[in-house]
Amino acid sequence: MEHGGDLTEAIARHGGTPESWLDLSTGINPWPWPIPARLPNDVWQRLPSRADQDALTAAARKAYGMPDGADITAAAGTQTLIQWLPYLAAPGQVAVVGPTYSEHAVTWTKAGREVIAVSDVDEVPASAVHIIVVNPNNPDGRITACDALFSAAARLNDRGGWLVIDEAFVDVDPHVSAVTICADLPVVILRSFGKFYGLAGLRLGFAIGAPNIITRVAGALGPWPCSGPALHIGTAALRDQPWADRMRGVLTRRAGELDEVLVKAGFTIVGGTSLFRLARHPEALKLHAALARQHVWCRSFDWADDLLRFGLAPDIASLDRLAAVLSLVA
Amino acid sequence: MEHGGDLTEAIARHGGTPESWLDLSTGINPWPWPIPARLPNDVWQRLPSRADQDALTAAARKAYGMPDGADITAAAGTQTLIQWLPYLAAPGQVAVVGPTYSEHAVTWTKAGREVIAVSDVDEVPASAVHIIVVNPNNPDGRITACDALFSAAARLNDRGGWLVIDEAFVDVDPHVSAVTICADLPVVILRSFGKFYGLAGLRLGFAIGAPNIITRVAGALGPWPCSGPALHIGTAALRDQPWADRMRGVLTRRAGELDEVLVKAGFTIVGGTSLFRLARHPEALKLHAALARQHVWCRSFDWADDLLRFGLAPDIASLDRLAAVLSLVA
Repeated sequence: MEHGGDLTEAIARHGGTPESWLDLSTGINPWPWPIPARLPNDVWQRLPSRADQDALTAAARKAYGMPDGADITAAAGTQTLIQWLPYLAAPGQVAVVGPTYSEHAVTWTKAGREVIAVSDVDEVPASAVHIIVVNPNNPDGRITACDALFSAAARLNDRGGWLVIDEAFVDVDPHVSAVTICADLPVVILRSFGKFYGLAGLRLGFAIGAPNIITRVAGALGPWPCSGPALHIGTAALRDQPWADRMRGVLTRRAGELDEVLVKAGFTIVGGTSLFRLARHPEALKLHAALARQHVWCRSFDWADDLLRFGLAPDIASLDRLAAVLSLVA
Repeated sequence: MEHGGDLTEAIARHGGTPESWLDLSTGINPWPWPIPARLPNDVWQRLPSRADQDALTAAARKAYGMPDGADITAAAGTQTLIQWLPYLAAPGQVAVVGPTYSEHAVTWTKAGREVIAVSDVDEVPASAVHIIVVNPNNPDGRITACDALFSAAARLNDRGGWLVIDEAFVDVDPHVSAVTICADLPVVILRSFGKFYGLAGLRLGFAIGAPNIITRVAGALGPWPCSGPALHIGTAALRDQPWADRMRGVLTRRAGELDEVLVKAGFTIVGGTSLFRLARHPEALKLHAALARQHVWCRSFDWADDLLRFGLAPDIASLDRLAAVLSLVA
């Protein structure tokens, strides 16, 4: 299984249909921002205009609290930006702070870059020209403090490198964002739209940073990088501050309920964000297989045999189903 | 004006609203494939699965008549593929057969490649490692015969290069497609979904070619390159052969009616496809400005002062409006 979120392999192995599975393998909010019943026809039919893109980035600037000196560009999902960065950054070695979301190391390696794994942003050797840190980290939720990021970015500045900060899950805790330091240092912040807003199928993400970096990223993406529906829905959702404020509270409560179920089944909660929980169990891999046989899908890791990651259950019935299956197998 | 299709600049200069303009600057079918009133929720909410992507490419394989030996990958619009190709192709000079869609030369130049302009695929010098040909060509509709493409691809094979065939408008005349030769030669065919199906806002396009090339392109795009709505709608539309067959007839008739209006106004039709018409007039640039003042937007070219390109008018009233404005200004 390369990624959470793709049931195709699970179904191939264990049967069932996408509807029959309880998919807890992702960190996507199961209570999405409510999209309108019908979108304007021209959202589908015409090419997105400059004005559409400008409306989206203006909404994102405000929602993300961007300083005036920073620039922003939108893409068809953060993954698209992750794919491009190795081709746009200066030559040299890249240090990935991990364990973390695997696609960063995968894309830089595929692009022919030397990738080293480090466990902390303060432990990056002088050989590294670029650093990638996911903040809060996936899957353990670890938060790297802003002053550590600031120091790292300042060091990379002398090497001509970039500090890539993947803030895919920062919406649940916006004060963790490094957006305030990115205008004057070589920092590229990646913001994901689909996870917090529960609309991962829309494919929308942003790169935020100093204008010279963002110009380069936007140039690589070219014209019309985002779909009409993504621009339309993304703009409206990012303007909806009350929804975001309320949702942060909802997610915190639901994550607490998930923790209770996991603890009752013998797990120890070791981290996460309010969009997913990382839990330890000595029989984690056995449990992962047993859950899959019951068509409950969570995330395991090839670098740890005692950890599983669980996304939020979409309703009480699903949470009860998880609890019931765990009581049988755990 | 960098591109057709973006009214933002036209409105900034001449006023009005997107609704008040008659936008004939694109080659997008104004009678789109009818998308369902409501899409399944999971199309928006979850990450697209491998199964979703496989369903789309299977539908495209059939619709495009692909040979078994060829491979295909989907992207968020053909432009995304155009952006990537210079980073994936072997080093060396690229020849663009033109005048044509400007983004090919723009992207290869931006990526640091030497780009030369040639007027025919048979006139490409031995220095060129890659060739780009748009077929049928935009804006003149010129068709490069399959045997000329075959010879060119065979020559490039010895140089380690690629023949990129942009078939953005080939759906109106599918037998022009070079899809039959692409499995065994270094050919990359680009197919646009949004133009013929009238859904440019969806952002969907394909690269088709030999498996070793397509694997490279798919690897650069990474996971989840297309949105859930694009996969869902694209799959259904590409399976709808009766709609496509009927639409080809509709477009031919509507293009004929547009030609009549243009000829009556003093234009000579010099080419195009049934999605746009290229028309000559000694006062073309003056007419472009006069039409814009009446909020009718067509396409002019910086390499010709006697040519304009017109897309299809969406209804009789719009065609009458074009005729009326032309009778005043032409």
